[in-house]
Amino acid sequence: MIVDRDLWFRERDRFYSRMIEDLYIGYLDHGILDLLKMIFRLEGVFPKSSCTGRITIVDSQYPWRRRGSSIVYKSHYGLSGSDLLYIIGKKPLYRYWITVSGPIMHLSCVNLKTAHKMLRLARDAGFKHSGIFSLGRKGITVELISGVSMISILRDGEEIYIDLDRIDEYVSRVNDVLRQGRSRLYELKNAILKHIRGESNG
Amino acid sequence: MIVDRDLWFRERDRFYSRMIEDLYIGYLDHGILDLLKMIFRLEGVFPKSSCTGRITIVDSQYPWRRRGSSIVYKSHYGLSGSDLLYIIGKKPLYRYWITVSGPIMHLSCVNLKTAHKMLRLARDAGFKHSGIFSLGRKGITVELISGVSMISILRDGEEIYIDLDRIDEYVSRVNDVLRQGRSRLYELKNAILKHIRGESNG
Repeated sequence: MIVDRDLWFRERDRFYSRMIEDLYIGYLDHGILDLLKMIFRLEGVFPKSSCTGRITIVDSQYPWRRRGSSIVYKSHYGLSGSDLLYIIGKKPLYRYWITVSGPIMHLSCVNLKTAHKMLRLARDAGFKHSGIFSLGRKGITVELISGVSMISILRDGEEIYIDLDRIDEYVSRVNDVLRQGRSRLYELKNAILKHIRGESNG
Repeated sequence: MIVDRDLWFRERDRFYSRMIEDLYIGYLDHGILDLLKMIFRLEGVFPKSSCTGRITIVDSQYPWRRRGSSIVYKSHYGLSGSDLLYIIGKKPLYRYWITVSGPIMHLSCVNLKTAHKMLRLARDAGFKHSGIFSLGRKGITVELISGVSMISILRDGEEIYIDLDRIDEYVSRVNDVLRQGRSRLYELKNAILKHIRGESNG
């Protein structure tokens, strides 16, 4: 056996307390709280971290490069045309890239059977890019990721690539991608609910 | 033990024959052949499938949706400004999305120790989004993916979002992302070479 069960249960308690703490501090998005609590109720699995999805604009040579890059905008709720115009109007140090990420969740599972079960459940709910992120004594970490994503270049030096006459329509496409990501979380919640009911029935 | 060793070795032989076949048919990119052969030489791991990265343009409501979507352009080598102008000039059924994917590789490992080793090696070489894709009797499948990616909307109905006066510069940014992906393959090759030399030395 890879996972130390006692250690895993201690980790589970620790992450539960942390969730409650985050909730009081206001770190936690209420939209995801139900889902997190629901996963804590399942056997052999708990959520370690989660993000409901977000829009970021970075000034960077490449959007995947951290070194030398700076975040110029970040929102979990949505971008406005005037926000984007304001940002895009200033010359970047390198390039402006906009990224819309769908939801990401890390779950800790007590054994491979549970990890498999959660992966199947998540993939069926639209988290197609999910996999096992790591295996260790503390647990098997499953990463849930969907294909919902957008990564575009906005400006390089003096060159603006987006048609500024279409900025409002462009922004509504961007916000739509964020919403599509959010809807994956509801699908996941429904899939888990169905799973819980199925188990208690049979 | 999860993996059936005899079955795994038979799979290895089968995939080796397939690689040779693909090579003769011309399916296989010569740029990746060295890397594949190198991985076959490692102990307890073989490559199941690989893609050196590509540019695709789809006509689809969302780029991650397969249903109802059609591929209007695909290249492993690079896009030209005139190609893009020609495509973007025709009204899509839904929306045109351009995607640049970095390299992807699926490796089959004989046990968790090897899977871990390959994951560490790949992450260090820039394949940061790698993970275990599946575990079964036939092997542990490790997926190697880097963060190199671009997914942008080009046109929705009558609305074109890209500034057509900047199309050549935009295309060179797109091709640059493809090249960045390719360079990850060289980094992986170097990392494996270093690993092989390290093992034979000590």
